[in-house]
Amino acid sequence: MPQISPLAGEPIERADAERLAGVLKALADPARLRLLSLIQSAPEGEACVCDLTAPLGLSQPTVSHHLRILTEAGLLEREKRGVWAYYRLVPTAIATIADLLTPPRKRATKKAR
Amino acid sequence: MPQISPLAGEPIERADAERLAGVLKALADPARLRLLSLIQSAPEGEACVCDLTAPLGLSQPTVSHHLRILTEAGLLEREKRGVWAYYRLVPTAIATIADLLTPPRKRATKKAR
Repeated sequence: MPQISPLAGEPIERADAERLAGVLKALADPARLRLLSLIQSAPEGEACVCDLTAPLGLSQPTVSHHLRILTEAGLLEREKRGVWAYYRLVPTAIATIADLLTPPRKRATKKAR
Repeated sequence: MPQISPLAGEPIERADAERLAGVLKALADPARLRLLSLIQSAPEGEACVCDLTAPLGLSQPTVSHHLRILTEAGLLEREKRGVWAYYRLVPTAIATIADLLTPPRKRATKKAR
């Protein structure tokens, strides 16, 4: 996960920009945002590919491809149980992205509370 | 700007996912993240293309292209003064994205404070 905010008041380095852009690219897809949303709102906050193909209207290989991208970006974690793999959100990973995109004035206010 | 969070606890609709993915795509590029960062840290929080080509090591047409994508996504605002256009961040736009990506438990805690 990237650690340096582009909004912290100092220009970010190329490597930090590339790291953050990589995670944002994983998020920046309508099917993947819907997958995150479906998993987040599933009972107990987890779902397998078998739960996700019908609501998205996508094939199992396509859903698996999107789940792999989200998992590789650190946004989902995957646990194999029996024949299926179950996915759940990594809330700290998504919160990190949100924090990096929070403008500093707002961050300062939050800290001051 | 999108208004519905994919993490709110209900599956988001396709149109909302497409809207949010569009803004995230504008953000999900290392050169554009560095541009936001350079503009944010510039004196008085604004910069023209003339200020941005050298630190990025990119040509003026390339920088202008990236600035146009960020402006069309609502993340930058542009003001023409004399021969140059000056760009500054739209802090509420970036804060909106950060809020949409803040997991609900964290949002609830913030509200409760």
